[in-house]
This record gives sequence, structure tokens and C-alpha cells, in this order.
Amino acid sequence: MLVDSAPQLGAGRTAPSRAETARRVMVSAAATDSRVTPSEDVPAWLAEQAAAGTFEVTPIPFGDLRGWHFEEGSGNLRHVSGRFFSIEGLHVRGSRTPAQGWRQPIIVQPEVGLLGIVAREFDGVLHFLMQTKAEPGNVNALQISPTVQATRSNFTGVHQGRGIRFLDLFLVPGRARVLVDVLQSEQADWFLAKRNRNMVVEVGPDEELEAGGDYRWLTLGQIRALLTEDNLVNMDARSIVACLPTLGGDHQQAGDDFASAVRRSFTVDSTRSMLSTAELNTWFNGVRAREQLVQRLVPLDSVSADGWEHTHEEIAHDSGRHFRVLAVDVTATSREVASWGQPLIQPRNPGLLALIVKRFRGIPHALVQARVDVGHLNVTELAPTLHCRPAEHTGPGTLPNPPYLDLVLQAPPLWRRYDAIQSEEGGRFYQAQNRYTIVEVPGDHGEPSMTHPPMEAGDDYAWVTFSQLTELLAHGNYVNVELRTLIACAHALY
Amino acid sequence: MLVDSAPQLGAGRTAPSRAETARRVMVSAAATDSRVTPSEDVPAWLAEQAAAGTFEVTPIPFGDLRGWHFEEGSGNLRHVSGRFFSIEGLHVRGSRTPAQGWRQPIIVQPEVGLLGIVAREFDGVLHFLMQTKAEPGNVNALQISPTVQATRSNFTGVHQGRGIRFLDLFLVPGRARVLVDVLQSEQADWFLAKRNRNMVVEVGPDEELEAGGDYRWLTLGQIRALLTEDNLVNMDARSIVACLPTLGGDHQQAGDDFASAVRRSFTVDSTRSMLSTAELNTWFNGVRAREQLVQRLVPLDSVSADGWEHTHEEIAHDSGRHFRVLAVDVTATSREVASWGQPLIQPRNPGLLALIVKRFRGIPHALVQARVDVGHLNVTELAPTLHCRPAEHTGPGTLPNPPYLDLVLQAPPLWRRYDAIQSEEGGRFYQAQNRYTIVEVPGDHGEPSMTHPPMEAGDDYAWVTFSQLTELLAHGNYVNVELRTLIACAHALY
Repeated sequence: MLVDSAPQLGAGRTAPSRAETARRVMVSAAATDSRVTPSEDVPAWLAEQAAAGTFEVTPIPFGDLRGWHFEEGSGNLRHVSGRFFSIEGLHVRGSRTPAQGWRQPIIVQPEVGLLGIVAREFDGVLHFLMQTKAEPGNVNALQISPTVQATRSNFTGVHQGRGIRFLDLFLVPGRARVLVDVLQSEQADWFLAKRNRNMVVEVGPDEELEAGGDYRWLTLGQIRALLTEDNLVNMDARSIVACLPTLGGDHQQAGDDFASAVRRSFTVDSTRSMLSTAELNTWFNGVRAREQLVQRLVPLDSVSADGWEHTHEEIAHDSGRHFRVLAVDVTATSREVASWGQPLIQPRNPGLLALIVKRFRGIPHALVQARVDVGHLNVTELAPTLHCRPAEHTGPGTLPNPPYLDLVLQAPPLWRRYDAIQSEEGGRFYQAQNRYTIVEVPGDHGEPSMTHPPMEAGDDYAWVTFSQLTELLAHGNYVNVELRTLIACAHALY
Repeated sequence: MLVDSAPQLGAGRTAPSRAETARRVMVSAAATDSRVTPSEDVPAWLAEQAAAGTFEVTPIPFGDLRGWHFEEGSGNLRHVSGRFFSIEGLHVRGSRTPAQGWRQPIIVQPEVGLLGIVAREFDGVLHFLMQTKAEPGNVNALQISPTVQATRSNFTGVHQGRGIRFLDLFLVPGRARVLVDVLQSEQADWFLAKRNRNMVVEVGPDEELEAGGDYRWLTLGQIRALLTEDNLVNMDARSIVACLPTLGGDHQQAGDDFASAVRRSFTVDSTRSMLSTAELNTWFNGVRAREQLVQRLVPLDSVSADGWEHTHEEIAHDSGRHFRVLAVDVTATSREVASWGQPLIQPRNPGLLALIVKRFRGIPHALVQARVDVGHLNVTELAPTLHCRPAEHTGPGTLPNPPYLDLVLQAPPLWRRYDAIQSEEGGRFYQAQNRYTIVEVPGDHGEPSMTHPPMEAGDDYAWVTFSQLTELLAHGNYVNVELRTLIACAHALY
């Protein structure tokens, strides 16, 4: 009972305020090098770790998938333990489906996992303990990951989490100072109402943690540089970085250059934004109340009626779009369990996730979309300006272009401020690479002007500062995982 | 598109900040009378309205229910239009169910309705436009309700909401200033993930609204007084009142008496609360991550396997507990449609909802529970200290007492600060009356002491100020509808 630990909670009152954490986050962001982990050593560290671990992933027929079976009656794909996750059918009606809705496969994982980064001050600057980690779906062996990534099945299993390093820092009240703690959604195209707990906890500057060669302390400035590389910072790490508070981190930042302006967008309060917090809120609630999303689980067998073909090797849509479910055999040298089989989801075409930004009153604003996706917990979340798979929009007989696709594809090089390939979570998704890009369109130098370039979209879009987004990220289900990646990437722009 | 209305949004920037609204809310709370609607006239107004409307509600067999049918195959109870709501089966596993879960009937209403109050200043004091409204499930004819109560089916129907008075004030951007706008849950024992949009909008002090005899402008001080009456202020009005911001409304409030202390609890910032905002947040997320709630819709027919008996007149549990589904015929003189049939939910036993409060450092704190209910959207929400049906805990062979039941029932009269019967929403629930009570246990006069009275509960409870609750109510799915009622009722304590 919380009241019993009141004296300890009193001690916890030294936990920094959000504004104080924001200030320290921006100090760490400005630190592009570190005495603890010199930036010049990072490539060698990554190469060394990549050489140490081997990881073989082989697609196999479903019939060879150990521990998993298609359940009698429903055809749902489950683990024999009943744990981990299942793949079931979802019937959904919403603004992106036909009136009668459609059925599709969906990943069902009702438990909440933990994604956590341990922070510590060195030389007065916050550092974050990152690790290299291999996942079966990764296109490359290793990616830079949070200190801890654990499903609830991991830490409530036979080992009760004792096998998971640093887990106690997150789960034992009072063990470390909590800087970030929020439940956030994951890919709503593929998951039904999935949530993970995103945390950052801080240990004292004198507390030594026994971390092995796969861990390194990095400043946010160093992580920002790594975010410009393709497929290097994993999805979970990007998600947590996006949840760091930034509002109030630096009110004094001057400079007319784009980098200074972006930094300002992360830190200004809403008196300088196009929409007040109340206006943003009421616009978003208006979309949530206007749109409808009716979801119900159905047998996986029933999705065949909507074009999903189930063969020995895959469940895939006959249009060639969407994704396929496949089975893989995994052999690892760096895990306790050296070999296992599991299902994975593979997108059929790479995605394009774009954020259009524009300066109003000197502050870059991002054009976000209130998007309704099939798996959303609560109808809609804020998403990038553009979320599509361009291959589905080329050639005869394909889908009409979504708003802003032409603008994003044809943007002059000078407008393209960020452009990299990033991977989605390799524990569930097989080689799921998306292109993430941030495009700056010419801004105004006085009053807001909407005439250049023409903006073609409707009531589902709004211009917001990055600080408004990081403030919304104090709560769950406002900002989706793809937009969180672009917020993390936007940190690389200053 | 929002950007097109940017000049108008600029005008909207005059919308008051949350702290400014809080200040004005507390000024209105202090106004116990009004020139516009003298308090002494209120009883006559209510009597007059009660005399004007007649409303006959007759339980009927399901077979006589016009417009509704049990769907072939599933047995789900639906309206022929496919709109309004349906009653289906829910299979649920969670901390309050056996390991294998259970099946029960549940109301499914995926659309978001609108509950809205129009506010306006008279003599510099915010007044709220309340109406008397009859609902088929009410134990009495009329209750005091928000300005607007509309389901989405109402306002997107053939009339496009043109028949609903004042709806444009809420739905047309810029038409009025938004003071409150948040999606909140409703009874999670009976609804699956139901949400309604709770709004307060303000019109200018010169804007005359054509309101009929069933509407009156009341100050919050007047509404506070009405909240001490049984079954007078309806659930929707209570829910909106609870969402009014109060933090910062009055920092200067002095006085050692209970009333002054409660008022202080509504307005103090979290530096004076037992838990910091961050600590409260991380405790709550911890419960959300630790508990599990696995819900899936199943055919209503299948709930019979878990003891639900379906006769011509009702669907009810053979234990005599929980609730029953029944059908009624309604004849009204005050509605456009003068006669209709509909299903309603009737609880089998009245509930007891209690909030224990205790002064720490002179500030009353409420003991809230992070409760997992079958219909929750997101595992858990904050709930009253005690939520039970006492009849289920008396006599041989009944359920063990929940924590605090004995304390609440045996509390000396001096401890019982609030005690009234309030009704749940009469549009869905038939004569659903609950006893709501606030019990103050002796506080400390220095450092927190937990020893008196003995507190028996576990990690799911925490002490919070009322201002922490009204701040959480800026976002959805933190505070459940029963606790919102008790927060509204707590306004009556000062």
C-alpha cells in the first residue's frame, strides 16, 4: 500500500519536475561527445558487438513451427503456453474501411511490456545506457536498443524477471528516480490496442552499474547523431527518446537558422504556437468523437473471405498489399534460449512516413494528421503528415494518391531536412523497413500564410510545435509510434 | 482544414488558460445565489417542470419490444437500424474474475456522445445553463441535466442534429470558447469501453440564448447545494462538474475548518500533496502494466453457460447478483417521439460508493483505488475507495467483505461528511440508485501517520488531493464515472 511507504515517498519528492528534466534533456542533447563513451569509439563498439553475435533466421512452413499451433475451430495462431501473443482475425469498420468493414489478421498481445532506459549523470550531463541487441526480424544483426526491453511474459515467467538485467530499477518503487513513465501504443495497422510502458529512470551519479560490453552510456547528443543513420537506433529506443520532456528546456535559444529554430520548436511554450493547447485538444477530441472505429475479434479462419490466402508458408492478401504472416526458425548465440521458432509479420511494401514542417512566426510547426487505424485503442492518434506505401499508388489500377504524397516525393533537395530508413521492431516484424523523412516547406515571415504550397487536406490535419507533441507524450494514445520515430529523428535536426 | 481557419484560431487565442478558468470556477462556486435565478425560486421551477411532463415506463416482454430483435446466430440484442447500442456477450479475464474468466452481457456502444454545458457570465460570475430532463430509467420524473445530452446517433441522423438545441455551440469551431473538452468513460461494469465527450463552452456576456422554461442559469454554488439532494443532479451533469478545472482557483484560502480545507484540496498545487504528480503517475502506470484485462465479445447466447438465464422478460444471473436486462415501453409527452420501446439494464442491488478522506498536512486527501473493471478501455481507472453492493456481502454464503466496507458502514456520524442517493444515467439504466458517501477519518497534525484507523488495503490504493484528480480529468480514462460523481459531491462540502 502506497501509504505505508510514505516516508520513502517523501524522499521521492526530490524527483525533478518535468521542466527541470526538460532542461537537463536539452543540456544532454547539446553534448555531442562524452568522456565516458567518446563518439569516435562508437563505430568500433558496434563493429565488435556485431562480430560477437550470430543470428540465423530461416523462414519455415507453419507445420515446422515448434510450440505454436493453429487452434481448432478458430484457426487462431497461438503459443502452446497461451502466453506471448496470438494472431487472430479482426473485423473492423472505420473511416479507412468500406462501409461493411473488412476482416484481416491482427496481432493480439493484451499485456503491457516494458521499454526502459537507465539514465545517469556524468560530468553534470545526463547519459543514457543503451545496448546493442539482435532481433530475428532485423535486416542487420544489431541495433541500438534501450537498457531493458521485456514483455510481461518475460518478467512474470518462471524466473520472475530475475534474469532480466536492471529490471528492478524500473519496477521497484523508490529504487531510482522516474524521469519518464508513460504507456504508448505500437503499430495500429498490425497490433490490436498494443501498449508498452516507456520509461526513463535515473540512478545517482555515484551508482556504478555492472554493464557488459553490449552496453554504453551515451548523451542525447550522441544518440541524435546515430539517428541520422539507417536502421541503427531501434524502434523502442526511438519511442522512448520521443517521450523525453523538452518544453522549457531552453527559452533563450536564439538564431534564425533552421537548427536553432527546430530546437526552439522543442522548447517554446504554447503561447507561441499556432494552436493553443485548448484548441489542439478540442480539435483532436472532435476527430475522436466524429470518427468511428468498431473492432471485433473473429476467427483467423474467417479472414479468407476478404482475400487473405492461407498456405503452408504464409497468410497473405491476394492484392499483394498489406502484409504477410510467416514463420521463422531462429538460431542465436547471444540469448539464453539458443534456438526457437516464432511467427513474424512482414509488410509487402516499404512504407513512407513523412512529416511536413513549416515555420510560422519563426517556429517550425509539424503538420500532423489525426489518423484512424484499425488497431487503435481509442479511435485515433496523431500520426505523420503522410503514412503510405508508395508502391500501392503507382501503375494502373492502383489506389489514388493520399494527400501530400506528390509534395513529399517531389520536394526539392533543399527542403528535405531528414531522410533515412528506419526499422520497425524486429521481435514481431520481419525486415520491416520504412523511409522516414522530414520536409520543410517555405514558411512565412509574418502572419501565417497558407497559400504556398497549396495544402490539400481536410479537417484531420493540424500544425503543432514539437514541444506540443512532447507535452502530449506525457500521456498515452495521443501520438502514434510512427510519429514518435519522426519526433526522435527531428532531434537530429538541430 | 484547421490551417484555413487560422485567423479565426488567432481570435480563439483569447480562450482562457486552465488556471484562469479554475479561478473563475471557484468564484462561481462561492456564489450561492444569483440575480438571474434566485435560489429560492429553484424548488418552484422544479415542481412546475415536474408537473408539465408525464412519462410512463412499463416493463414488457422482449417479444413486444418494437424495433429491437435478438439477432439470428448470436442472440445479440440490436436495434433494427443497427444504431444506438446493442447488448452482446463479453468474455473477460482480469484481476476480479476467475482465472478462466467469465461471460456476461455487456452494452456495446462504440460511438462517442456529447454531454455539454453552456456557460455565461452574469454580474461577473460564471453561470451554467442546466435543464430539467426526464429519462425512462429515472426513479423520479425529472433530474437536472446538462444543456445538451446527445448520442452520436442523435446528431448524425436524418436531422443532422438540427433538432438538438445549442448543439452548434459545441460542434462549430470558434462558435463559443471551450472551457472543458475531454472524453470520459462510463460504468465499466455495464458498458464496454463507452466514452462520452464532456464539454463546457462559454458564450459572450451579451449573447442571449433562447432557452425555454426547462432551462435555468445556475452558479456552481447553486449546483453544489443541489448535489446534497437525493437523485436531483443527473449523472451526466455530475460528470461534467467533476471535469471543471480547480487547480490554482484560490491559493489564498485560509481556515482550519473542514470546509476551508476541502476547498484548499481542490486548489492546491502538488507540492503540498502526499504524492508528486510523477509519483502518482508512475504508481498508476504500474498498476496498468501489472494487471491484465483480456476482453472479447462473444454471442449473447453464450453467457447462459455462466449462469445468465434468458426468459421472455429478462436476462438475469441465477446468483441474484449483478444486473438484469429488461425491456420497457416508454410513453412521453416531452419528446418528439411520443412513444418507444427500449432495453434497459437494472442492477439487482443498490451500490455503495464511498470515498475515504483524511487530512495530511492540513490538506484533505482522498483514498482512491486503481480498479480493474470488465469494460475498461485501458485496464484500470481511478475509482472510489469502496465500490460494492452491500447486499452481496451479508448473510451466510455471501462474498467476503471488500476492504473498508466495515469502516464505511460503521463510521461515526461525525465522520460522515456527505451521504446521498444518486442515480446513474436513466437513458440506459432502470432505477439504478447508488449510495454515495464521503467519510473523513481522523487526520494527523504533523507528519503523516497511517496507524489510525488501520488501513487494510494493498498496492492498488493511493492518497490524492482533489486538485490532483481535477488535473487528471483534463485527460480521459484516468478517473471513472463513480469517482467523478464523488468529486462533484465533494464540491458540496465547502
